[in-house]
Amino acid sequence: MARRTARPAAAPGALATPPSEAIEAAAFDLFARRGFQITTVRDVMRACGLTQGALYNHFSSKDDLLATIIRSTQGVLEKECGEALAKAGADPVARLRAFAHVYTLRHARRRVEAVVANREFEWLDNTRLQEIRASRRRIRDMLVRVLDDGARSGAFRSLRRGGKDDLKIVAMAILNQCTYVAYWYRAGGDWTDEQVAELHADLSLRIVGAPVRESARDGAIAAD
Amino acid sequence: MARRTARPAAAPGALATPPSEAIEAAAFDLFARRGFQITTVRDVMRACGLTQGALYNHFSSKDDLLATIIRSTQGVLEKECGEALAKAGADPVARLRAFAHVYTLRHARRRVEAVVANREFEWLDNTRLQEIRASRRRIRDMLVRVLDDGARSGAFRSLRRGGKDDLKIVAMAILNQCTYVAYWYRAGGDWTDEQVAELHADLSLRIVGAPVRESARDGAIAAD
Repeated sequence: MARRTARPAAAPGALATPPSEAIEAAAFDLFARRGFQITTVRDVMRACGLTQGALYNHFSSKDDLLATIIRSTQGVLEKECGEALAKAGADPVARLRAFAHVYTLRHARRRVEAVVANREFEWLDNTRLQEIRASRRRIRDMLVRVLDDGARSGAFRSLRRGGKDDLKIVAMAILNQCTYVAYWYRAGGDWTDEQVAELHADLSLRIVGAPVRESARDGAIAAD
Repeated sequence: MARRTARPAAAPGALATPPSEAIEAAAFDLFARRGFQITTVRDVMRACGLTQGALYNHFSSKDDLLATIIRSTQGVLEKECGEALAKAGADPVARLRAFAHVYTLRHARRRVEAVVANREFEWLDNTRLQEIRASRRRIRDMLVRVLDDGARSGAFRSLRRGGKDDLKIVAMAILNQCTYVAYWYRAGGDWTDEQVAELHADLSLRIVGAPVRESARDGAIAAD
């Protein structure tokens, strides 16, 4: 029965991967398509061709499964953002470009994970929610520091309203424009994920009033 | 029993408003805080101090309730965007400013509605989903036309990648940065909703490489 109703991608062949990985992949897929709240442990395990009880060899609950997969994808995102900044050197323009590029690229390439991490994370219990929020804040604060460095060095124009510092808000605006590529981007369309990432890096540089000089290099930007 | 467990805002006094409005308000609140999928008709009606069956005097189902409230807030958003453009005249800079301002202002002021309309709309049945998506596309296309007019007139710099037209993607980036103010903005904080709307209008103008000239008027923008 489970075998008959299993989706093609979740046939017994999926068990060539370790069960915990198969469960996590099925959870991302089902939580993204149907939502965490009404997806049951049975649904997830059936999609892997595993018994319902087998979940508990790997996760303590459906909540634990959600927390594990979001923590995992969020951790990679945070690590990639930090590494991109570490490699980018000291120039604020290069740092913002590198950050926005890697952040967007991940949201385009791992869009199912991004949908779960951004739409379903609110259903985590409070302790786990705070843990994910802390990672999100660390990523935002990496960007705030880039914006602050750029504003102080004169590389970026800063936006202020009524004398109030706006760096967190500008950071959120940049993150939001890059995060939600996950909701419309599809591989195999007119744009590659690299092109979308490059474009959003350019948009981010424009937001801070920095020259989009690296793009001019390859002639990819031109006025209509 | 229902009265004892009702939340303060949903006490019988809420019935001073017409029942359908009280139900819609409770639905927005509960769907935003707990999610549509696990919120029951009983939860919504209890929050209004009404019997479960009373829902069906106004809505055919919980799905119909979700569709009605999203259609309602989405319809107002579309109308406000159209009116803002109609009032803004022919100048692409003024048009983009007016559009981004009204769009952001609504997402800051009606953040609960925006959360439901953006996070929960995917759970609508297919016919209703297509209807909401059509409205979202119309709003995006209003913005695409503004971007196109601005690029053609030379008011905006256009971003292209590999010769490909990017107006829909830039429009999505602008919409996303403005939409998701709903996730962090709280009235009574350091920023008024008007200031947040103005800032996002400025960010939108920067994205298209337009001068942020109207802001210079009140001296609100300055380099650090």
